[in-house]
Amino acid sequence: MAAPRLTIDQYFEGIKKSDTAILSRAITLVESKSPKDRELAFELIKRVLPFTGKSIRIGITGSPGVGKSTFIDGFVEYLVNEKKIKTAVLAIDPSSKVSGGSILGDKTRMESIVGSHDVFIRPSPAGLELGGVGAATFETMLLCEAAGYELIIVETVGVGQSETVVNDLTDFLIFLTIAGAGDELQGIKRGIMETVDLVVVNKADTLEGKTFEKLRLNFKNALHLFPGKASGREVSVLSCSALQKIGFEKIWNEISAYEIAVKGNGHFENNRMHQKKLWLQKTLERSILEYIYQNEEIKHQKEYFEKMLSDQNVNPLEAASRVFNIFKSRFQ
Amino acid sequence: MAAPRLTIDQYFEGIKKSDTAILSRAITLVESKSPKDRELAFELIKRVLPFTGKSIRIGITGSPGVGKSTFIDGFVEYLVNEKKIKTAVLAIDPSSKVSGGSILGDKTRMESIVGSHDVFIRPSPAGLELGGVGAATFETMLLCEAAGYELIIVETVGVGQSETVVNDLTDFLIFLTIAGAGDELQGIKRGIMETVDLVVVNKADTLEGKTFEKLRLNFKNALHLFPGKASGREVSVLSCSALQKIGFEKIWNEISAYEIAVKGNGHFENNRMHQKKLWLQKTLERSILEYIYQNEEIKHQKEYFEKMLSDQNVNPLEAASRVFNIFKSRFQ
Repeated sequence: MAAPRLTIDQYFEGIKKSDTAILSRAITLVESKSPKDRELAFELIKRVLPFTGKSIRIGITGSPGVGKSTFIDGFVEYLVNEKKIKTAVLAIDPSSKVSGGSILGDKTRMESIVGSHDVFIRPSPAGLELGGVGAATFETMLLCEAAGYELIIVETVGVGQSETVVNDLTDFLIFLTIAGAGDELQGIKRGIMETVDLVVVNKADTLEGKTFEKLRLNFKNALHLFPGKASGREVSVLSCSALQKIGFEKIWNEISAYEIAVKGNGHFENNRMHQKKLWLQKTLERSILEYIYQNEEIKHQKEYFEKMLSDQNVNPLEAASRVFNIFKSRFQ
Repeated sequence: MAAPRLTIDQYFEGIKKSDTAILSRAITLVESKSPKDRELAFELIKRVLPFTGKSIRIGITGSPGVGKSTFIDGFVEYLVNEKKIKTAVLAIDPSSKVSGGSILGDKTRMESIVGSHDVFIRPSPAGLELGGVGAATFETMLLCEAAGYELIIVETVGVGQSETVVNDLTDFLIFLTIAGAGDELQGIKRGIMETVDLVVVNKADTLEGKTFEKLRLNFKNALHLFPGKASGREVSVLSCSALQKIGFEKIWNEISAYEIAVKGNGHFENNRMHQKKLWLQKTLERSILEYIYQNEEIKHQKEYFEKMLSDQNVNPLEAASRVFNIFKSRFQ
């Protein structure tokens, strides 16, 4: 069904020429779990690495219904048309195990930006297994950077997405919300408040000025419960209407000011270094576990104990321990 | 700071007597990452296993602001007072890495049920590392079951929680929402639609009957886009007002009917077996990675390559590959 694999040279040349068809196939390659594909992907990433790291990586998170797709659609259109910035949009959807990913209503999203040569859109339906989500998306970002994209937007898709994964991938995290979502009052987890770099209240054209100001202050108060950010920046709360295309300029100015500040104070480099170490660890763990599961004896024993489990002859903890002991006996 | 560890016998006897102070300390033990604690936890879980598995395990997910805490507060009060069901509530908050967990406003939550002897409430601030979330919460559930809790509610805390993790832990998943959240129109991910067993529209006392009926039909239409559930059950959409304590009876009836149906058609046992296999795998992977990181040479080499990374002398992929090769050379 899938197109056949290309050679490393073909992938590399295609990416360098910003050929989106080849870029897409390269992403499929880095998402693959087959050991042979992983090996090829590994070579390809090594090859493109010198051409990566130059983009600004932005994460966008928020509950369903706050208008994330409309926001990204409008904002990317603004960036591409007004600011002439080549932009890639990656959507992480790690949680759909049954169907293996893909976003509801995908095809009707982002109508105004689909088709532009300066925009690349890609859902990232990577599995949760073996810490694969972050690593595959990280690698996808690198491929996009090598293909010349100057801004990468990583979107989480609705409830249940790990925005901490996105935070581990990006330079700047936007939390999108609307009045009435209750986010400012109680619902927000520490995880978001601690990691977010900018709060954007969408659909603000439907609000009175006073309502937004109250919301802004509520957020500011909630944000002040947490220690200062490692970036040294205050978290702003801005309003926008993605539908009316109002407010994008201020958001872009905030991102630009942030970029200048954190490149000046060392946080940008520190954060990227932290992410590289995480990437090292995730890649290492994935390699190790994949390698172990390829081992015939361990594979066989795991299957044997799963069968024992089905027959109620062993409990899961005991089974894990028995397979682990086999691993231990083979690791010196 | 922490209380000293007890002996296995002390933990076991305390749990069997439903001593909540000891149950809490046992949970702290299974959440611990220290190898010595893990070993003790392992023994304890093995010891309590024969007394587990009898509860009904319910997951509750939904966006911030839909009233999850109020719902759980009211529903648990109903279960304990009207149905005389001993209930444990576990809240998973895996994503707060900076502060290490704990929920905003925790102390003021669930006022009406705190203090009852038939209710046990426990936040589960387990880290995301090494697949720890699911395993630690799974083990916590087992401890609660051994302590005599007949119903376990696992709550995800707001945006960004992996409700698929909750789905891997529970028998029945409730998706809580409100009118206007937009969940029924576009925002809902496949991940939720595919895994949910019941949709509950909260704050329904503020809705006209017609509005709820429209919402219900929208959800039903959205749900019909997906293949039939493995449970063989249709997903119902019910209304409630947690604040006014209206609608709990219907929700409980749905859960009870579900239990009877899936215990009859084999799905209950299949699902639990699937979860046990997952638990086997997560426990195994955690053990293996912890063991590998304890190895002096691998620890040393990982630190060495992290240093090289900082000095820009190696890229993360190359570094991971070099440490992986050391692992490979030691694994026969």
